[in-house]
Amino acid sequence: MTTVSIGIAGASGYAGQELIRLAARHPQIEVTTAMASGANDAEKTLPALSHIWDGAITPLSIDRLAADTQAVFMTLPVAVAAEGGPALVARGVRVFDLAGTFRLRDRALRQRWYPATPDLDTPAVYGLTEYYRQELADARLIACPGCYPTAALLALRPLVDAQLLDGDIIVDAKSGISGAGKKPTERTHFSECHGNVAAYGVLTHRHGAEIEQEIGQAVTFTPHLVPLDRGLLATIYARVRPDVDDAVIASTFAEAYANEPFVRIRRDALPEIKHVTHTNFCDVGWKVDTASRRLVLVSCLDNLVKGAAGLALQNLKVAFGWPETTGLS
Amino acid sequence: MTTVSIGIAGASGYAGQELIRLAARHPQIEVTTAMASGANDAEKTLPALSHIWDGAITPLSIDRLAADTQAVFMTLPVAVAAEGGPALVARGVRVFDLAGTFRLRDRALRQRWYPATPDLDTPAVYGLTEYYRQELADARLIACPGCYPTAALLALRPLVDAQLLDGDIIVDAKSGISGAGKKPTERTHFSECHGNVAAYGVLTHRHGAEIEQEIGQAVTFTPHLVPLDRGLLATIYARVRPDVDDAVIASTFAEAYANEPFVRIRRDALPEIKHVTHTNFCDVGWKVDTASRRLVLVSCLDNLVKGAAGLALQNLKVAFGWPETTGLS
Amino acid sequence: MTTVSIGIAGASGYAGQELIRLAARHPQIEVTTAMASGANDAEKTLPALSHIWDGAITPLSIDRLAADTQAVFMTLPVAVAAEGGPALVARGVRVFDLAGTFRLRDRALRQRWYPATPDLDTPAVYGLTEYYRQELADARLIACPGCYPTAALLALRPLVDAQLLDGDIIVDAKSGISGAGKKPTERTHFSECHGNVAAYGVLTHRHGAEIEQEIGQAVTFTPHLVPLDRGLLATIYARVRPDVDDAVIASTFAEAYANEPFVRIRRDALPEIKHVTHTNFCDVGWKVDTASRRLVLVSCLDNLVKGAAGLALQNLKVAFGWPETTGLS
Amino acid sequence: MTTVSIGIAGASGYAGQELIRLAARHPQIEVTTAMASGANDAEKTLPALSHIWDGAITPLSIDRLAADTQAVFMTLPVAVAAEGGPALVARGVRVFDLAGTFRLRDRALRQRWYPATPDLDTPAVYGLTEYYRQELADARLIACPGCYPTAALLALRPLVDAQLLDGDIIVDAKSGISGAGKKPTERTHFSECHGNVAAYGVLTHRHGAEIEQEIGQAVTFTPHLVPLDRGLLATIYARVRPDVDDAVIASTFAEAYANEPFVRIRRDALPEIKHVTHTNFCDVGWKVDTASRRLVLVSCLDNLVKGAAGLALQNLKVAFGWPETTGLS
Repeated sequence: MTTVSIGIAGASGYAGQELIRLAARHPQIEVTTAMASGANDAEKTLPALSHIWDGAITPLSIDRLAADTQAVFMTLPVAVAAEGGPALVARGVRVFDLAGTFRLRDRALRQRWYPATPDLDTPAVYGLTEYYRQELADARLIACPGCYPTAALLALRPLVDAQLLDGDIIVDAKSGISGAGKKPTERTHFSECHGNVAAYGVLTHRHGAEIEQEIGQAVTFTPHLVPLDRGLLATIYARVRPDVDDAVIASTFAEAYANEPFVRIRRDALPEIKHVTHTNFCDVGWKVDTASRRLVLVSCLDNLVKGAAGLALQNLKVAFGWPETTGLS
Repeated sequence: MTTVSIGIAGASGYAGQELIRLAARHPQIEVTTAMASGANDAEKTLPALSHIWDGAITPLSIDRLAADTQAVFMTLPVAVAAEGGPALVARGVRVFDLAGTFRLRDRALRQRWYPATPDLDTPAVYGLTEYYRQELADARLIACPGCYPTAALLALRPLVDAQLLDGDIIVDAKSGISGAGKKPTERTHFSECHGNVAAYGVLTHRHGAEIEQEIGQAVTFTPHLVPLDRGLLATIYARVRPDVDDAVIASTFAEAYANEPFVRIRRDALPEIKHVTHTNFCDVGWKVDTASRRLVLVSCLDNLVKGAAGLALQNLKVAFGWPETTGLS
Repeated sequence: MTTVSIGIAGASGYAGQELIRLAARHPQIEVTTAMASGANDAEKTLPALSHIWDGAITPLSIDRLAADTQAVFMTLPVAVAAEGGPALVARGVRVFDLAGTFRLRDRALRQRWYPATPDLDTPAVYGLTEYYRQELADARLIACPGCYPTAALLALRPLVDAQLLDGDIIVDAKSGISGAGKKPTERTHFSECHGNVAAYGVLTHRHGAEIEQEIGQAVTFTPHLVPLDRGLLATIYARVRPDVDDAVIASTFAEAYANEPFVRIRRDALPEIKHVTHTNFCDVGWKVDTASRRLVLVSCLDNLVKGAAGLALQNLKVAFGWPETTGLS
Repeated sequence: MTTVSIGIAGASGYAGQELIRLAARHPQIEVTTAMASGANDAEKTLPALSHIWDGAITPLSIDRLAADTQAVFMTLPVAVAAEGGPALVARGVRVFDLAGTFRLRDRALRQRWYPATPDLDTPAVYGLTEYYRQELADARLIACPGCYPTAALLALRPLVDAQLLDGDIIVDAKSGISGAGKKPTERTHFSECHGNVAAYGVLTHRHGAEIEQEIGQAVTFTPHLVPLDRGLLATIYARVRPDVDDAVIASTFAEAYANEPFVRIRRDALPEIKHVTHTNFCDVGWKVDTASRRLVLVSCLDNLVKGAAGLALQNLKVAFGWPETTGLS
């Protein structure tokens, strides 16, 4: 059985730690290198992972990643990723970026939402696995989607593709605090989050542009921080076209995801965050009122797994032609 | 200084306890009677309130309430309130109902959403204080609004009244678990709520009808339970009419609430639940994008105070002609 | 590869669900039967486990368990387990009981702490794997330890066995709410637990007797409920004998657990609950002050894994002569 | 009615905000000055307090405090308080320090636990109100106790004073995260605290020395962080002397606190954090086993009120000869 030597650039963040945890379960992946997100960052121990990872986390070095690895997961600051990603690709390393730098195809949009990104010549594949498998097979640079877009798109794409929707789309999302990153800030202080719910980035969050790119339509997107660690629930509002009823929606979803191992369509009860945490599943459910044509979709995932590390690993397995479920189910 | 003897029917629930707590701070209110929500309920001690309330909670008796009190706060099952409320009014007691029974004016709607309610002849005033002060002065039966409608309406009413809005209105609300009541259920078990977010009553929650009644327009309303004890945040989506910009909205809110002691308009930062818990404030903020005419309103309150006990007390003070802020600021 | 057909009696509780989750990962275990904890219990679906377990949970039937399984995990009410366990053993099924019925060897103590238990002739092995491997190999009835005793004993046993301790032992334990079971009660209501810490069973919790049985010494044991879902931390106070210093303790632990896959001795930093949740590890650390001979031990585990389902599975693997770590690391 | 002009030095921390909140309710207190904890700190707005405090928080200036105020509450870094406190006293301002600088009377101990403190000539009164009322009347510099010592001492002092205890005393305390301060750190990050319990400062926390000073005996003190915002519960282990039973303990507590407005002795059920949050109460309960002479005390308070701001205000009222309960009950 061939193994692939993997580097993680940005290993001390929450997504990085989850990558170490998940990669350890896969027999063909060997994490040879785990680096911090900066060239001067001190090494850290990870007590929760001591049974899996006994190596140290070393300062970031693109050169060493290029020398030691065949594939790299990157969760780096945008400007660092914008340079490091193409440099690694140029030296034959396949790069799975988790941080947003390469997601927007339109240059003007990219400059608006990721101003630190230089113009990029390296073509990137948008790594929403369920919709880009063919492109992933040959991809060298994979832009893994954001956690919010993953939840929103897995719910919206089948209905948009089948032209069942009409009018405005609103995505109201609630995320656990790990989605705000590991850096201690006033926003992530326990006492500020506990007992609190707060909207942020209202009408200005860059994940909105990412959702719009993939469904080709304007979207109103509002993320909220809710007091839990991991997990994300998106409530999505739309109108269905006349004559679209519950059965049509059900069959559309059933067809779209019949062979997808990590999308579960819920008919009995609406998805809840607890059903998906610590798994790579995205659960999707809905309620529709045919009289008023109002549709409410609910989509859930673990922001650190299907919204980050699990999705990235799924992409790696597609890229290397391996079965997708090994180590993830 | 005159005092009013008050009864609380349903005193062992969360809203009931908050009523005891708040009423104790008001010099003109004497809680003479605190009853359980059933005629056979055992008495309970309330250790958190032992410094305020050393009486026992007695079984429910409408007769005793009629004999001993001038005004009653009711948080009772709908069928019990539907009988008890009018009975108390008939015997000269002013009734402030917190449980929904009397909120919907339309008989067909009431039968749909509160089927246990018999037809009612007793006219009720909808107790959204800020909009019904005049009617409250003479009211005998006050239907205090639900926690979700209070948050939604205080944000929507000024803009609807000024005809600034256009098209669909969506209310996506997130509530702490105390909003689900004190009865232990699978839904309120700590381990089910912790780390979880769940939508419920999607397209079928009766608070939707209540919001629609008060703004005269269809609304899509989705409540969610989030893992915190008390507090509620509503994110409201609408479109503004052409030429309505941030300044128009700001001046509309400023005018509507210039003299309101318990509505705070936030211009600097969007409201968060932590800013309002344990207070009678409803905080309202917004973001508008004039190009796309998209408006996002955020409204917050403590579901047990401004969404229940505080609001009811505010109504009592209006009904008795007292200053509204005593004991509540 | 031989497989063993397994039944779970009490599958809808938290430990039962964790058993399903963990058993699914083991190639030699086939869960053929999952039953509720009562003969009249309705069946339930388990949405979080839908990808693992698509069977229904059927009403409890000892006969069917005897017919269909080679080994049974029981999390049943004491009186039910006291009958069902020996009955299954008599019909050739190996029984791993998680509920306490069979833990206390002394008959008088058993009658005091588990009064529903009839006198039992079936000999049980106390399933603290690390200390009873030899007995487990042939055991037919295994009394899996409680979550609190597991944490306390894994920290205390090496020091007690080496006679390093002196004087009183105090175990102050903090547990997540899942330890209080799945039944909705006032005690487990989210709003009662959130923002709360409460001691319970002070000087009267039966896990105290269990700890005392295994170390042969009186212990003061106080459990507390803390507002988290899963995980347990025990802070243990003792005095060391003269001349016992940090190095002696370290070498004693190192020797005791050198080959144990699921006990991690922490020298760098004290254990925390987050390091062990969703794993089968028990982490143990300590601080000692040689001048005053005061010792503080800290021991952590996930009450649903190493404190229940994981421990039970570890015992099963020992009992069947399989490697202990498969599917658990 | 005379009013006193108050300054708060360190107003943006959690204790500082609570001081603003509580002081606003007292008719004789006027907060004229609220300062940050450093001379270069930017001003902040406090949205949760906007209805109470519309002034800005200005950079720290001892000179301005001396000019503008009659009394100052200080929650400043030790070194800053060590200079600023005596300087204010020298200029006629009464100082209530909340940060620890002045608590330890023994010079050697103070140098060990508060090394940044220079030798101090200014005599300080230890502000455990219930035991130092007489000294507080004339005090110029009041060292308000720490939150942990307040909980431990209010439970221990009556029994120690009556000589009912024997042998070792262990204080195992569980505190909400606000006790760790407002500064964002890895330790206070929501995702690190949520679902976690961690012991810290084991055998080395300076509050241990403070407890020992006040009861004249060695104490083993272990604090833990638990995932809630505010509130603290101390479980205290001791042995009673022979012939000390439940009745003796009860009468000792009853006598000690008969006239204390803010200590509640719980006989029915043990105290829990939820009974005291947002109040100035310290609740104390116990269980004793006379056969083994083992005693477990449980003591609860809100670390920001009775453990900080409320206690400091209580001291101010004693110092100025006012009734203690105004604005605090």
